[in-house]
Amino acid sequence: MNALLFNCTLKPRREPSSTQAMLDKLDKAMAKRSVKSEFIHAVDEKIAYGTASDMGKGDGWPAIRKKVMAADILVVGTPIWIAQRCSVCQMVMERFDAMFSETNEQGQLPLYNKVAGVCVVGNEDGAQHVGASLIYNLMQLGATIPPNAEAYWVGKAGGADDYIDVGQGHEYTNSMIETMSSNLVHIAHMLQKTPIPVDGNTAE
Amino acid sequence: MNALLFNCTLKPRREPSSTQAMLDKLDKAMAKRSVKSEFIHAVDEKIAYGTASDMGKGDGWPAIRKKVMAADILVVGTPIWIAQRCSVCQMVMERFDAMFSETNEQGQLPLYNKVAGVCVVGNEDGAQHVGASLIYNLMQLGATIPPNAEAYWVGKAGGADDYIDVGQGHEYTNSMIETMSSNLVHIAHMLQKTPIPVDGNTAE
Amino acid sequence: MNALLFNCTLKPRREPSSTQAMLDKLDKAMAKRSVKSEFIHAVDEKIAYGTASDMGKGDGWPAIRKKVMAADILVVGTPIWIAQRCSVCQMVMERFDAMFSETNEQGQLPLYNKVAGVCVVGNEDGAQHVGASLIYNLMQLGATIPPNAEAYWVGKAGGADDYIDVGQGHEYTNSMIETMSSNLVHIAHMLQKTPIPVDGNTAE
Amino acid sequence: MNALLFNCTLKPRREPSSTQAMLDKLDKAMAKRSVKSEFIHAVDEKIAYGTASDMGKGDGWPAIRKKVMAADILVVGTPIWIAQRCSVCQMVMERFDAMFSETNEQGQLPLYNKVAGVCVVGNEDGAQHVGASLIYNLMQLGATIPPNAEAYWVGKAGGADDYIDVGQGHEYTNSMIETMSSNLVHIAHMLQKTPIPVDGNTAE
Repeated sequence: MNALLFNCTLKPRREPSSTQAMLDKLDKAMAKRSVKSEFIHAVDEKIAYGTASDMGKGDGWPAIRKKVMAADILVVGTPIWIAQRCSVCQMVMERFDAMFSETNEQGQLPLYNKVAGVCVVGNEDGAQHVGASLIYNLMQLGATIPPNAEAYWVGKAGGADDYIDVGQGHEYTNSMIETMSSNLVHIAHMLQKTPIPVDGNTAE
Repeated sequence: MNALLFNCTLKPRREPSSTQAMLDKLDKAMAKRSVKSEFIHAVDEKIAYGTASDMGKGDGWPAIRKKVMAADILVVGTPIWIAQRCSVCQMVMERFDAMFSETNEQGQLPLYNKVAGVCVVGNEDGAQHVGASLIYNLMQLGATIPPNAEAYWVGKAGGADDYIDVGQGHEYTNSMIETMSSNLVHIAHMLQKTPIPVDGNTAE
Repeated sequence: MNALLFNCTLKPRREPSSTQAMLDKLDKAMAKRSVKSEFIHAVDEKIAYGTASDMGKGDGWPAIRKKVMAADILVVGTPIWIAQRCSVCQMVMERFDAMFSETNEQGQLPLYNKVAGVCVVGNEDGAQHVGASLIYNLMQLGATIPPNAEAYWVGKAGGADDYIDVGQGHEYTNSMIETMSSNLVHIAHMLQKTPIPVDGNTAE
Repeated sequence: MNALLFNCTLKPRREPSSTQAMLDKLDKAMAKRSVKSEFIHAVDEKIAYGTASDMGKGDGWPAIRKKVMAADILVVGTPIWIAQRCSVCQMVMERFDAMFSETNEQGQLPLYNKVAGVCVVGNEDGAQHVGASLIYNLMQLGATIPPNAEAYWVGKAGGADDYIDVGQGHEYTNSMIETMSSNLVHIAHMLQKTPIPVDGNTAE
């Protein structure tokens, strides 16, 4: 069982990242359940703007797309900026958008029989709306969404508390990570055993 | 296998309803897959405003809540008004909100091991954002969300075409209903066979 | 200069309301600027479900609609429930929706030359998305939106701190109320002096 | 009176752009009202990812920021991708985010006394939610929002009709552009004559 975890922070990998801090906790929680995770630090990957699966020379997406297809569990992690998923996260989702005109070997959308969840970190507000739209995108693309498949941190109105400094000690958020981890793994095992049959869900 | 379908139209049952027209199609598609559906016409049910499971004398929710707990599949159908889920739909979701402080026999949230989807009808815009927030709410409450668990109809900008008149012939929407039906039923069967185990997902 | 303030809490007027507590502060801030406010406690007003300006016998909306038309400043106050504007608030907005097919004496939408703002209270998340959609609705209906026309309170992730108990002491939120008050009043005075001319903005 | 119009398409300037087609119409409508517009084709401008006003060597934002400060009217144009404002648009808004810790000469947020609006083009859905969040961001940053300050195009569910091909002939959308143009210009003139006074709306 393997997972692919996208860190969509605006900052390069060498800088401390609240999103990475949350994904690290999720990784640990899934590792206890025998899941091997790989991370994609999206802003460093030279992913081109666009909505096709391959935008040509220098595009970092095609290599990442192969890892997406090989994963059982997908997790998208994003900070909140100006109340929205950040631009790097949206750039990644635009590349996923190409999959709406692609299929797996059965003719279903490429993310069928994968499970997905999201991690969202912000300083004051927006975690549920950012999470909702990401979960919706992943579900549209064919992923199955387990219960409680989002973990998030936000501080109070106008807050200045970063997840990496303050949120990591927040019991509520830690409990969400634990629950999310457990449910992602269970539903992924279910889908391995009984994949979604071809029945009304293929492009014709 | 049984399903509970909420029609959250603002109009009483005796009036034609686009939301009902879409739910009827979904019912037929699920009946082919041996699912028995019951409908809740929410505006007629004397559901009280509030966020507790029982708001006292005259409240229609407690009887509906029992049906929710007995269902394997939950579907929330809503029209879009002023770009949002309608008020009757939000009133229903506010009653679901009480479940965040309740559990099933295993200590998990009450909607664990149920699957959920949504049907959304509007004249011009808003179907994906309305669908995303409803799917998110149901996932938070413990439901599992299959791939493509939303069917919707919207016409073009400023459009005046009702689903009941025009949308029912729309191939794209009909295809969404068929896919949604298939996936709801498959995941519901999976969860019957291998329920989500107690592991990090109970209130302590 | 007069203002109409909607309190869209789910609770009857006799119960303590966080939304009322915030609107009271806004009232005081506007009173300092010579604005006279009237409150509508929407859940007590027997407003019918629907999307017409008059839903017939017993409907409380037509009387409120007259007050809307007489006001210079409109403020919609709502709690957040399950990450959304609450059902009472949406019910009120559905009644405003009828105005899309109505005009003022110049043929513009009825809310032209009024200014609008919003107050949003929640325990943990959602204030900006709830505020954004309300502000958008009011702008679509013809109101002008001053800078910083929202005040809100939310606590941290999973938070249990009510505005009425904790948020009232929150400096950031108090500062938003003060700013909003000032800007609502200034733009309202501007529009009194130089109303928006008939130019491309009338229904034909 | 001058306007700055952001085209946030994912495509370079040399390719046909639906967003540009709508902004061109808006430009013509505002030119009739004596407004001079300049366009920013954001994806070509080497704007860095980040949330500061200057991200250092090679960053295209500081030059654009000067144009923002010199403009009376700001318009953000974006396509909808996967139900959201596109990544280039969000990248631009993240650069605007830096202004939350900056002020004009009076100590107000830098966009005070500017007016703002949005143009949104998509194939099937999402125009109002994308528009609402952009309008909200601009209002938070200090802009005043006139009535009907959004023009949009979306086709019907699952639609494949581009604005540039089909939407340009759509009467409803053309009417929105005309109304938006008129109201942006009127409110901008009002704010030139009577700027928003310093009163409760400065930082500290």
